[in-house]
Amino acid sequence: MSHFQRVLLTGASGAVGTALRQSGTRLGKIVRLSDRKPCENLGPHEEDATLDLADFDAVSEAVKGCDAIVHLGGQPLEAEWKTILDSNISGGYHIYEAARRHGVRRIVYASSVHAIGYYERTETIDGSVPTRPDSLYGVSKTFVENLGRYYFDKFGIETVSIRIGSCFPEPTDRRHLITWLSYRDCRQLVEKSLSAERVGFMVAYGMSHNSRAFWDNRTAASLGYKPEDSADDYADKVFAKTQQGDPNDPAVRFQGGSFCAAGHFEDDKK
Amino acid sequence: MSHFQRVLLTGASGAVGTALRQSGTRLGKIVRLSDRKPCENLGPHEEDATLDLADFDAVSEAVKGCDAIVHLGGQPLEAEWKTILDSNISGGYHIYEAARRHGVRRIVYASSVHAIGYYERTETIDGSVPTRPDSLYGVSKTFVENLGRYYFDKFGIETVSIRIGSCFPEPTDRRHLITWLSYRDCRQLVEKSLSAERVGFMVAYGMSHNSRAFWDNRTAASLGYKPEDSADDYADKVFAKTQQGDPNDPAVRFQGGSFCAAGHFEDDKK
Amino acid sequence: MSHFQRVLLTGASGAVGTALRQSGTRLGKIVRLSDRKPCENLGPHEEDATLDLADFDAVSEAVKGCDAIVHLGGQPLEAEWKTILDSNISGGYHIYEAARRHGVRRIVYASSVHAIGYYERTETIDGSVPTRPDSLYGVSKTFVENLGRYYFDKFGIETVSIRIGSCFPEPTDRRHLITWLSYRDCRQLVEKSLSAERVGFMVAYGMSHNSRAFWDNRTAASLGYKPEDSADDYADKVFAKTQQGDPNDPAVRFQGGSFCAAGHFEDDKK
Amino acid sequence: MSHFQRVLLTGASGAVGTALRQSGTRLGKIVRLSDRKPCENLGPHEEDATLDLADFDAVSEAVKGCDAIVHLGGQPLEAEWKTILDSNISGGYHIYEAARRHGVRRIVYASSVHAIGYYERTETIDGSVPTRPDSLYGVSKTFVENLGRYYFDKFGIETVSIRIGSCFPEPTDRRHLITWLSYRDCRQLVEKSLSAERVGFMVAYGMSHNSRAFWDNRTAASLGYKPEDSADDYADKVFAKTQQGDPNDPAVRFQGGSFCAAGHFEDDKK
Amino acid sequence: MSHFQRVLLTGASGAVGTALRQSGTRLGKIVRLSDRKPCENLGPHEEDATLDLADFDAVSEAVKGCDAIVHLGGQPLEAEWKTILDSNISGGYHIYEAARRHGVRRIVYASSVHAIGYYERTETIDGSVPTRPDSLYGVSKTFVENLGRYYFDKFGIETVSIRIGSCFPEPTDRRHLITWLSYRDCRQLVEKSLSAERVGFMVAYGMSHNSRAFWDNRTAASLGYKPEDSADDYADKVFAKTQQGDPNDPAVRFQGGSFCAAGHFEDDKK
Amino acid sequence: MSHFQRVLLTGASGAVGTALRQSGTRLGKIVRLSDRKPCENLGPHEEDATLDLADFDAVSEAVKGCDAIVHLGGQPLEAEWKTILDSNISGGYHIYEAARRHGVRRIVYASSVHAIGYYERTETIDGSVPTRPDSLYGVSKTFVENLGRYYFDKFGIETVSIRIGSCFPEPTDRRHLITWLSYRDCRQLVEKSLSAERVGFMVAYGMSHNSRAFWDNRTAASLGYKPEDSADDYADKVFAKTQQGDPNDPAVRFQGGSFCAAGHFEDDKK
Repeated sequence: MSHFQRVLLTGASGAVGTALRQSGTRLGKIVRLSDRKPCENLGPHEEDATLDLADFDAVSEAVKGCDAIVHLGGQPLEAEWKTILDSNISGGYHIYEAARRHGVRRIVYASSVHAIGYYERTETIDGSVPTRPDSLYGVSKTFVENLGRYYFDKFGIETVSIRIGSCFPEPTDRRHLITWLSYRDCRQLVEKSLSAERVGFMVAYGMSHNSRAFWDNRTAASLGYKPEDSADDYADKVFAKTQQGDPNDPAVRFQGGSFCAAGHFEDDKK
Repeated sequence: MSHFQRVLLTGASGAVGTALRQSGTRLGKIVRLSDRKPCENLGPHEEDATLDLADFDAVSEAVKGCDAIVHLGGQPLEAEWKTILDSNISGGYHIYEAARRHGVRRIVYASSVHAIGYYERTETIDGSVPTRPDSLYGVSKTFVENLGRYYFDKFGIETVSIRIGSCFPEPTDRRHLITWLSYRDCRQLVEKSLSAERVGFMVAYGMSHNSRAFWDNRTAASLGYKPEDSADDYADKVFAKTQQGDPNDPAVRFQGGSFCAAGHFEDDKK
Repeated sequence: MSHFQRVLLTGASGAVGTALRQSGTRLGKIVRLSDRKPCENLGPHEEDATLDLADFDAVSEAVKGCDAIVHLGGQPLEAEWKTILDSNISGGYHIYEAARRHGVRRIVYASSVHAIGYYERTETIDGSVPTRPDSLYGVSKTFVENLGRYYFDKFGIETVSIRIGSCFPEPTDRRHLITWLSYRDCRQLVEKSLSAERVGFMVAYGMSHNSRAFWDNRTAASLGYKPEDSADDYADKVFAKTQQGDPNDPAVRFQGGSFCAAGHFEDDKK
Repeated sequence: MSHFQRVLLTGASGAVGTALRQSGTRLGKIVRLSDRKPCENLGPHEEDATLDLADFDAVSEAVKGCDAIVHLGGQPLEAEWKTILDSNISGGYHIYEAARRHGVRRIVYASSVHAIGYYERTETIDGSVPTRPDSLYGVSKTFVENLGRYYFDKFGIETVSIRIGSCFPEPTDRRHLITWLSYRDCRQLVEKSLSAERVGFMVAYGMSHNSRAFWDNRTAASLGYKPEDSADDYADKVFAKTQQGDPNDPAVRFQGGSFCAAGHFEDDKK
Repeated sequence: MSHFQRVLLTGASGAVGTALRQSGTRLGKIVRLSDRKPCENLGPHEEDATLDLADFDAVSEAVKGCDAIVHLGGQPLEAEWKTILDSNISGGYHIYEAARRHGVRRIVYASSVHAIGYYERTETIDGSVPTRPDSLYGVSKTFVENLGRYYFDKFGIETVSIRIGSCFPEPTDRRHLITWLSYRDCRQLVEKSLSAERVGFMVAYGMSHNSRAFWDNRTAASLGYKPEDSADDYADKVFAKTQQGDPNDPAVRFQGGSFCAAGHFEDDKK
Repeated sequence: MSHFQRVLLTGASGAVGTALRQSGTRLGKIVRLSDRKPCENLGPHEEDATLDLADFDAVSEAVKGCDAIVHLGGQPLEAEWKTILDSNISGGYHIYEAARRHGVRRIVYASSVHAIGYYERTETIDGSVPTRPDSLYGVSKTFVENLGRYYFDKFGIETVSIRIGSCFPEPTDRRHLITWLSYRDCRQLVEKSLSAERVGFMVAYGMSHNSRAFWDNRTAASLGYKPEDSADDYADKVFAKTQQGDPNDPAVRFQGGSFCAAGHFEDDKK
């Protein structure tokens, strides 16, 4: 059971949020669920806090009484600027500023591979390299990471920023063989991020035990994270179902995959 | 004379903007000046483009026809979130997105020491270290740097992000002996940022030839930047007028100075 | 099955070449075997291409129609200069230049520990350290690695350069406990080098899962390489059969072993 | 069986010394035991050499005839300066100087986490970082490490300096989940330090296979060290019995634990 | 004039101490001079404090009332162990512990090239590399550096440890062309070490503006140190008077010069 | 006057060779000049040794009696493979092997920017980065550097490999503003390479004091090299005469300039 009294879980209705609800009291004695729509099937340790991240007062009300936050909420893919701005940038600020005002001690943030998507697949990087976002979405992730760095350096609020690769039921393309994070490993990583005695401001990579990894994930290891799943187990299936890509296609060359091959959202959506 | 046909200079009415106007056609054959209020005393190579950075259409109109931008505009100090968000974050996005739409080839951005303010003064850093902002203002600077990184990696628009230390007529406190950038050197650094053949995405530090520097400024050197002024020449005067600080005061300990000692703007302003 | 249509395997009659032939169509749909003498017992997916690497026209003819090359051929030990020059240096150039002319997309090259033999055993190195060859043979390996780097940077031909430690049936001396590569793991590493979507120009180390390793082999791991064998399993046997060396003997001190203790071939052969 | 003829084991009566005696002839054909009091229950391969490390002549007499030393002796915790000086500093010099005079070839030294105790728990360090001792005890450990470096560089006497984390029967607090070294793994690490062909001057970390480790222990791995125990197996028990600490308490923040929270021994003992 | 009220200068009668006395009140408003024998010709801002560094009570008495210390005292060359132990090791501890008890805020310590003497001359090192002492004297210098690190991390007492190369009237051998520190530059470096607002624990190299330097001295530069002298001006004279050495002689190969070529003091003195 | 008795200068009739002849006895007491054609106007300290580098016996005869070599000879630009192979690869081996047989102690080798031509202009590199040649010519330069590394590690023959940027009478294009090496500075750098007491195997960059440099040239500085000329003095003239390049043109993007934009020599010459 977590030593936190009440943990706010944002984005609780999404696929990852739903997976994390299975952690139950390993997140906190009480888990407050927030999303745009009310969450269903609340357990005895759960409570609901429907809200729009763009609304500071609503966020502040939801944060009140919590001592930790798992922040999954916001726009999960590339989108037009206004959406990124409201959901991810303002939303991220609202979470951190409410945390400061209400004495929250630790935040676990769902960052993304798209914060560093423009590194080549042949490069092994760790959490200290300069960010290289591959989309406005990725830029918004780097923004919240910088917020986390700031709120720790000035106010002592700890953050684990987990750059999630591909959190899906199973790997379906060749890049997922590198970046896949199973729901089970995702739960473990979030739980370990909450139970570690000290995390300061830490960047970890969210991936299972995939041998093809291009990430040096020693920070996650230092939290005690030991992934139980591996994309390797799906390799034969994925190789059989998918074509070999052109190594010079940006979607193959860079860690961010198809995000790096796309143009600007405004143009692409036409 | 610059090889750029028309350069947009934002924040043209501020102290630094005014200093840069003296560069004349070394910035561009035509220099378009923008600020919230009309600029005065236009020279024959200058044209006016009054605008609010928070207004995308106005920014886009001003960028049209330019092939380079020197972006000084926006909120120059810590402020409440709404101001930072509109002027620096949305404003920064508007500049880059307008640049993309209108074929601008290079942007010189006035970033700040406050993007890395939480490094200790005893650490020598270069432009590749992880950012450690000391304020919401500093966070907004890291946001625009990430935008610049993204627009170069995906769209090929080059950026020199100059992390300006202290750009004032002369150093007035002991920290300025480290961080001072004279107006003359500022002009040279911006001019060299525009005339270099290739800059990619580059982070340089904006300081004069100060021997107490805590920055490894090899990127600026590679642009051909050779500062002509030095804060050293003001050392005796500054030492005489100021008190030795407590080395454990955050304002003395960290590179960001008083920004690191301040609390959150919302609380401090009360 | 490999996604390559036809792969040229040079040095196919040697011990490593023979071991690799067992990979069958995991190398390529068709595997063309080359050596100085005709290869025997051709399988249905195999074809023969007898040649001398020093003969550019013969190499070019053999490369024609292939889209990948596994280049094991050439002189495998220290030798007089003329042999190194013709077999390894000219031979290496012939392979790369023929590859360029005939549209080959990827080359897997059998480089060697002797390219970095003068690092001390107590140093852990990765593939990015400066080369330190321990013989003319080792110098020739660095030459081909530089060719591979060049042909990728200019012509986009990908290379995995595998610095093979000691590829033998089993470890027989104490240094082999560090450097041994089983035939089975060798096959896997070459197969993974061919099946990875993008390799760019990559240096990997060819060793099994030996706990005494002095190599940081993260590049091989990023290909998905998971060695199945370990020299550790032979440690007791090797310790029992061999003497402890003098730690200051160059053969013990350096990674290249006895190559570092030898003089110049011309003198030693007398 | 070790290839060393006679190994001196100092501190042989302590908990770690007693554990190491179980290694028997894997340390040396003969193991000479030294401590302030005579050791008991000598085996057929053991001999006794009672001595005070502060007495050079006694140390020299005990070292005579040995070709290796495992140096555990001295003050094992913070103490007043006089004790540290006599037991650890003079004692350390006596060991090395006697080794030089009597032709000892290798020393395995029991250094400590307290030599680098002031690194934060969120930092992963290896053996090459600058030392940051957390106590006079820790300073004395860095002193002997520097002695070892000197005696290797000038006289060729090899040293493995093992920075032991927490060598106890089992982990009992949350920091031990990171730093624990089982007696079994301790034995293995010392044995491997003696049997490796070349160690030069090497710093290794003494910990079991703990996933929460903040140490990059590649040097120990290069000796062939494969820990068989893990603090992870005790994690549930430790979590249940202990409270979550305050992440900003020095005892939680830094690697040295409570040593970092203590004041100066002279003051604290009052 | 220094902002320190009273500075203790140990080793005040030696050549370097005498040179530093010329700094006058740039060291402190009052400068207390200590050495084994009384200092002569006291100026109005000077006071005498004769003492033996091996005597803690005497050191404590001399430190009382001071807010900074410039610690030059102790054995300045290789010597027998007893001398090194009493003068440099115990002496160093006495200085730091007295400083802690009496509230001293900063210590400038005269460390030495011999703390890192075993780096090769062809290596450029900075203050963060592992120490590699070349003598017992050098080991004692690393001991005091570790003390300084400890007293800063735990008690906040700042230290600048200046690794002095060769502080003589002028360079007289070829190695001095690299390591020379003029008395004038030595004064400046100590003064700047005292006047900088924050130094934390810092390692700087004590050398003039010698172009042949093998030290990256950015820390000294960050104090504002701008050497005015250069060994280059003596190069022709030194080249004319001295022979070219054998590059493989340890005295030529290593940074510590003849210290690296010497044996152990006990043997050499015979 | 050099301490070497007789120095062989290969490529003595070329532009750089002719410039170096002005160094006179600062190279060696006797300077033996070699090129394909006899050198003219021999001074009293000069002697002629006409030879073809591809002829080992001729090289060996010329090396006999020399204790140092300045090796400029060979093909100075991209060429067909046969020329590169004979002049630069075989020629390089002949020089080193003859040096070994005849007891030569030091070689100064004219390497080239084209050994690392594929680094981007915005990257600052030093001599330890992996080579990235931009031509067969560049590959041949890396070959000789590896030879030099080998002959030092095994036989103790010292080498300074000078990667010359652009050694011409004056800079004539914008890239030369970065890479220019004046004849005067070239002379100084070669002289300092010969007079330094120990160089081991060292890579230095051959450039004047150009502020736009993308090379960290600390190794050259450690030889005492202080360039007296600067391409900066030609910047206005060059800017006036040349067009701004496209930053994405390989000739502008990469350090090797036009070599990076060219195709393969065999194709381009048609």
